[in-house]
Amino acid sequence: MTATTPEPPVDVPGRTMAREMAEQPAVLRRLLDEGAPAIRQVAQAIAARRPRFVLLTARGTSDNAALYAKYLLEIRLGLPCGLTSMSTTTAYGARPDLTDVLVITVSQSGGSPDLVASTRAAREAGAITLAVTNNPDSPLAGVSEYHVDVMAGPEKALPATKTYTASLLALYLFVEGLRGGDGAAAKQLPELAEQLLARQDEVRALAARYRFAERMVITSRGYGYPTAKEAALKLMETSYIPALSYSGADLLHGPLAMVDNVSPVIAVVTDGKGGEALQPVLDRLRGRGADLFVVGPAHQVEQASAGFVLPTEGVAEEVQPILEIIPLQLLAYEVTIARGQDPDAPRALAKVTETH
Amino acid sequence: MTATTPEPPVDVPGRTMAREMAEQPAVLRRLLDEGAPAIRQVAQAIAARRPRFVLLTARGTSDNAALYAKYLLEIRLGLPCGLTSMSTTTAYGARPDLTDVLVITVSQSGGSPDLVASTRAAREAGAITLAVTNNPDSPLAGVSEYHVDVMAGPEKALPATKTYTASLLALYLFVEGLRGGDGAAAKQLPELAEQLLARQDEVRALAARYRFAERMVITSRGYGYPTAKEAALKLMETSYIPALSYSGADLLHGPLAMVDNVSPVIAVVTDGKGGEALQPVLDRLRGRGADLFVVGPAHQVEQASAGFVLPTEGVAEEVQPILEIIPLQLLAYEVTIARGQDPDAPRALAKVTETH
Repeated sequence: MTATTPEPPVDVPGRTMAREMAEQPAVLRRLLDEGAPAIRQVAQAIAARRPRFVLLTARGTSDNAALYAKYLLEIRLGLPCGLTSMSTTTAYGARPDLTDVLVITVSQSGGSPDLVASTRAAREAGAITLAVTNNPDSPLAGVSEYHVDVMAGPEKALPATKTYTASLLALYLFVEGLRGGDGAAAKQLPELAEQLLARQDEVRALAARYRFAERMVITSRGYGYPTAKEAALKLMETSYIPALSYSGADLLHGPLAMVDNVSPVIAVVTDGKGGEALQPVLDRLRGRGADLFVVGPAHQVEQASAGFVLPTEGVAEEVQPILEIIPLQLLAYEVTIARGQDPDAPRALAKVTETH
Repeated sequence: MTATTPEPPVDVPGRTMAREMAEQPAVLRRLLDEGAPAIRQVAQAIAARRPRFVLLTARGTSDNAALYAKYLLEIRLGLPCGLTSMSTTTAYGARPDLTDVLVITVSQSGGSPDLVASTRAAREAGAITLAVTNNPDSPLAGVSEYHVDVMAGPEKALPATKTYTASLLALYLFVEGLRGGDGAAAKQLPELAEQLLARQDEVRALAARYRFAERMVITSRGYGYPTAKEAALKLMETSYIPALSYSGADLLHGPLAMVDNVSPVIAVVTDGKGGEALQPVLDRLRGRGADLFVVGPAHQVEQASAGFVLPTEGVAEEVQPILEIIPLQLLAYEVTIARGQDPDAPRALAKVTETH
């Protein structure tokens, strides 16, 4: 027998999720270096067909990526958008006239039968169809007229991490391509993502706050709102803490009743107009003595109970979501470890969810 | 001094909410008898302008009514729809081209400044604008080209109840008017609503199950999904129980990890295609031994841990949401009373929420 460096034991909790989170800078870099030209070509072909409306179809983590694209399309392109209620097609057989409509379906696996069925129906109804997936050989990619590959490599952990940030970047590059922009704001993301991941010890210390939390509220506005929803999903599917996400405006319309000094709040504050629009909500939360954890620029974190400072100086607001989810992925991971659970093995979940 | 019948003491918890829930059959009847002709006229005027796409704008309870309208418009009219991300207009100044777009804004008070601003912007951008409110003299009604009055009378309790069912019925009648239908399926709703309200004792007994619940999951599919969201909002804003709502398909994509025998699940099962599409989710929940409470037809309640039987025989699926929320409003009320709290006085909420 020869001595070899032992592999880490396979049963270290969260090993797979940790490895895939750590891959994110490399995934973003690959997409920028190797994927961007193909995405630009797809965008130019679709722009030439002048879609007037966009419908976005997705589930779970991919639905949060689709919501990010909705903000980009509405704000940067002025295209009216909707998120699909899939059952209207798959259960009720609705066949709307989709002439001039771009239907974007986002799915990590590209394998869910209802997404394939609804995309096929959309194409038959006259839509321009685009699939954004991590698998160019998937049934969804096959049934769509256009395909964008997010190039994240195989994702094995049940909680999706690298496919989420890769989908955001791919959608950003696609929307930039539609509007004839160069996507330069994304260039610094791989390096900044690396810096965030290097601060895992900081997140571990912060995670102790939530070890015994029975519920959490996560809020944001504008570009940060998809981050709030994705952070809530990540926390729930790893730690099982009921995490409720609301846009800041919706929070004031009811759920605020639930926030008091035993319901911690996480606010995702993008540095820009979204953060400005969230300001009255932050003031109200502070006025109620809420335990407020801010992920955002330094001046916002200083006014909160705790927080994680994001490097936002010189980072365009519309690409900040690609960074701001990373400390929240780490938080979900660390809270779950602190609670003695395994982030890689949520109860009851299958990686490819087959909904019909 | 002469003897008079004493008024009930003003501090009975939940007095206002109870009175307004009880008014619902009369409100529905008034809308059918007195409101329907005006709604049909508005619908005919808008139909003549042939909108190709519908955007729905609302917050809180009204957002759940807007989601119901989205299902109706997609399924019964084949019109592609989206729910507005309001901050794209109010915070980011997006000005999409809204030619051929019908923008429907739903608001009980018609008073929220951001709804007024986004509707004004939509009208300037070429949209056909329709406000659905409980106040024809409101700023929102004033700024919109068309208005539908839900005629629910003043609503004083903070948790909206009668304005919700009235908004659903008004939106149903509007969509029926758009497609040239007669809305006959709604005729029996006032009487059925009365029968449901008469079963409050039954709900009170069921509420004991949730007195000590620390979280709840509420699920549905299709037409019942807005009911699930509204029930979760109602439970949260009265009892402060974190209530998470998911479409059945989304529940399988992550949050199912949170469901076990200590996380009770409420399933809203409409009798029709929505209920059929939910069936695999119900089977999965039963397979996990979840505590499953069903609001739906008798044969579905029989297979659950507990439930409330809805009269669905002969009731068209698309109007069932107007009934199925009623036992869930009662449940929110009774759970809150059982926990020693006051459903009329949620912490921190104002009736007209001014978000900008």
